[in-house]
Amino acid sequence: MERRKVLLREEEMPRRWYNILADIRLNPPLGPDGKPVRPEMLAPVFPMNLIEQEMSPERWVDIPDEVLSIYALWRPTPLVRAVGLERALGTPARIYYKFEGASPPGSHKPNTAVPQAYYNKVFGIRRLTTETGAGQWGSALAFACAQFGLECKVFMVRVSYDQKPYRKTMMQTWGAQCVPSPSPETRAGREILARDPHSPGSLGIAISEAVEAAVSDASGKTRYSLGSVLNHVMLHQTVIGLEAKAQLAKIGEFPDVVVGCAGGGSNFAGLAFPFVYDKIHGRAIDIHPVEPAACPTLTRGPFAYDHGDTAGYTPLLPMHSLGHTFMPPPMHAGGLRYHGMAPTVSQLAVEGLIEPKAYGQVETFEAGMLAARNEGVIPAPETNHALACVVDLARRAKEEGKEKVILFNWSGHGLIDLASYEKYLTGELHDIAYPAEDIEEAEKILERYPKPQILKSR
Amino acid sequence: MERRKVLLREEEMPRRWYNILADIRLNPPLGPDGKPVRPEMLAPVFPMNLIEQEMSPERWVDIPDEVLSIYALWRPTPLVRAVGLERALGTPARIYYKFEGASPPGSHKPNTAVPQAYYNKVFGIRRLTTETGAGQWGSALAFACAQFGLECKVFMVRVSYDQKPYRKTMMQTWGAQCVPSPSPETRAGREILARDPHSPGSLGIAISEAVEAAVSDASGKTRYSLGSVLNHVMLHQTVIGLEAKAQLAKIGEFPDVVVGCAGGGSNFAGLAFPFVYDKIHGRAIDIHPVEPAACPTLTRGPFAYDHGDTAGYTPLLPMHSLGHTFMPPPMHAGGLRYHGMAPTVSQLAVEGLIEPKAYGQVETFEAGMLAARNEGVIPAPETNHALACVVDLARRAKEEGKEKVILFNWSGHGLIDLASYEKYLTGELHDIAYPAEDIEEAEKILERYPKPQILKSR
Repeated sequence: MERRKVLLREEEMPRRWYNILADIRLNPPLGPDGKPVRPEMLAPVFPMNLIEQEMSPERWVDIPDEVLSIYALWRPTPLVRAVGLERALGTPARIYYKFEGASPPGSHKPNTAVPQAYYNKVFGIRRLTTETGAGQWGSALAFACAQFGLECKVFMVRVSYDQKPYRKTMMQTWGAQCVPSPSPETRAGREILARDPHSPGSLGIAISEAVEAAVSDASGKTRYSLGSVLNHVMLHQTVIGLEAKAQLAKIGEFPDVVVGCAGGGSNFAGLAFPFVYDKIHGRAIDIHPVEPAACPTLTRGPFAYDHGDTAGYTPLLPMHSLGHTFMPPPMHAGGLRYHGMAPTVSQLAVEGLIEPKAYGQVETFEAGMLAARNEGVIPAPETNHALACVVDLARRAKEEGKEKVILFNWSGHGLIDLASYEKYLTGELHDIAYPAEDIEEAEKILERYPKPQILKSR
Repeated sequence: MERRKVLLREEEMPRRWYNILADIRLNPPLGPDGKPVRPEMLAPVFPMNLIEQEMSPERWVDIPDEVLSIYALWRPTPLVRAVGLERALGTPARIYYKFEGASPPGSHKPNTAVPQAYYNKVFGIRRLTTETGAGQWGSALAFACAQFGLECKVFMVRVSYDQKPYRKTMMQTWGAQCVPSPSPETRAGREILARDPHSPGSLGIAISEAVEAAVSDASGKTRYSLGSVLNHVMLHQTVIGLEAKAQLAKIGEFPDVVVGCAGGGSNFAGLAFPFVYDKIHGRAIDIHPVEPAACPTLTRGPFAYDHGDTAGYTPLLPMHSLGHTFMPPPMHAGGLRYHGMAPTVSQLAVEGLIEPKAYGQVETFEAGMLAARNEGVIPAPETNHALACVVDLARRAKEEGKEKVILFNWSGHGLIDLASYEKYLTGELHDIAYPAEDIEEAEKILERYPKPQILKSR
């Protein structure tokens, strides 16, 4: 019998997360005064224990027992050899993936939702607010809050709310409240609605609303939770890559290429950062974040200081950005509709430690269909971006006759995104171009802000 | 850190299925002439290798390597200690479940879909037809056929087809064709539509259509595949119970009670049969199949000879039945909407080796919500029936102060059945009664057929 999976026992789950801040230099986030943000300035938004984690330079951070115990519901996740896909492509490449779709909400997002809920609980917080695009993050936080008895309120980007009504049901089943964004509940939402009552929404707007809803709660028991971009989110996700490394070591493998889709950067970072560590320390690895051609943050956006949200409530972050007013088109990989990119991921791109790729959505669904039929699992539309790149690499390995070892992150299953497959199957899914004038617009907006330094980590 | 899961390594997966026919006696299926069916009479419907398996008295049947290799995509499945549910109920009972929701289509159904596709492929068959209720079985067979390069056509009960449009998309993503039943494509379907153009359909009707579509294909390369009821289906599912037994043994546990929901019987049998073996051989275990009060096959239906389908194409099977013309109400656990029950499961009920239970759908969703919030995973509506019984047992254990060990089958996740949770959350989900006049009607229909003997296995 052919071996497909490499499993870890529950006892073999990593006990520490990897903090890439120990190995790279970052420009600091800037406050409204143009000066570096001090921890206490973030206190109305996040609990202090997470703020400390956000800024910690320690390479290894212990995973609390309470978090490990919830992780154990679905972790360690399997490392799977994609024998079906290899066969279908006739490639000499050995393709492996981490399958993050077996978590209760179906994606990698609970890897950070669970510790975030835990740290807030420990800090005495009773209620979390957040935003969600495709719904993966909102569901994950709803799930995590249910495990720790916290209330949860989710602002969901309207286009996804309408395309995926059952995401709301999922969050409600876990006890959370979910409203479409822009909503009339916040000043940020009301201002957008006044300009465009039919606004499809964006992650940037929803973040503004969720931050506002947290900081304006007079009880002081509400905080905001973000599913990507921030350093502590990337940190929590590294459990994926650390497991993958241990699993590959068990069979004597090490990747030549590491691939993950990238919206805000967390699923990519989760798999890739522990391998970036090896690259920084001299190993040859190609590392590719893959984004939608319609929202090409890393491949076309300038490296600049920008806000994380549309209303400009957040500090200025040093990142690749399409400008915080950019409204990504309503494509199907809702989780990748974000104007910015995690500062850590952006910094790696600036230093040339990773090579970003972009694909059109038709090509990503072609790769997703190939994977579904040959690997069994129907991938999330976000995962299809990683798959498009993997298929390209595997075909190139075939042309070159090279036995490459390719590792990618299967970030989630697509069982709640079947509407997008229905569109693909009926020929109604098309590529969406990123317009040249938008990049000029972005550059104009970003000119207003200070320029980040081009830092070299070594 | 609290241990939640007991895992088996891929190498520890069972290599043989358990065949309960070695341990119980069954009345034979009867042909149109009222005499026992001979293998060759089934040859137009099933490939001969599966017919032989259906009638085999061997206690252990080897699982082919090709099947193990596909099983390995998601098996061995975890055995999970339901610590969250135990805590929420404050019960001294130790509750364990087998989680079958991690398969690509999200349920236990691929355990038999994969070997069925394999045996058909080996026999030279190119195309399979089948029916599906909730869509779990149709998706599973579509997935399995994709793995072996077989064509697949699914007749889906119309009420589910309309309630769950994305189930069709799922099957199409795996390359299958899916049509609502009753359909105009078969004589059986046309006759139903002539009487009632708005017929919601039933599993019985869809089976008639799928059987007809298989036997009427002149090429001889099409066969029919059934997702429950038959002996070989129960056989394939025993991989669940065999794994569970090995996992419990690792931690020195053995169940006092085993619970599974029951529609046609396969998910119940899969978990329970390996423990029925122990019960037959002297161990004290309570074993409960759980069915909907609205379709109370085991708890109210007589033990009789009846057809497996509405049109009467199938042999007469000795089973508990509500009559093959019974139209189960359109409740949300579509997978439990079936008039009959597997002959093996029925025989165990007749002998008193198992004790069937029935629950109304509101109570099952209450249990499902409790499980979702405390165990994380949103259960399939079918699984909620098992959960309702488990919650009852755990509460009784609390009243009696008993440390019972309860094992149940978490047959699937509910991520594609969120419409039913939406109904529950908005107060639109109600109990549906099984009308007393229907049982009289059933008895009248069943009077036409020979009576099965009341056999005792020992």
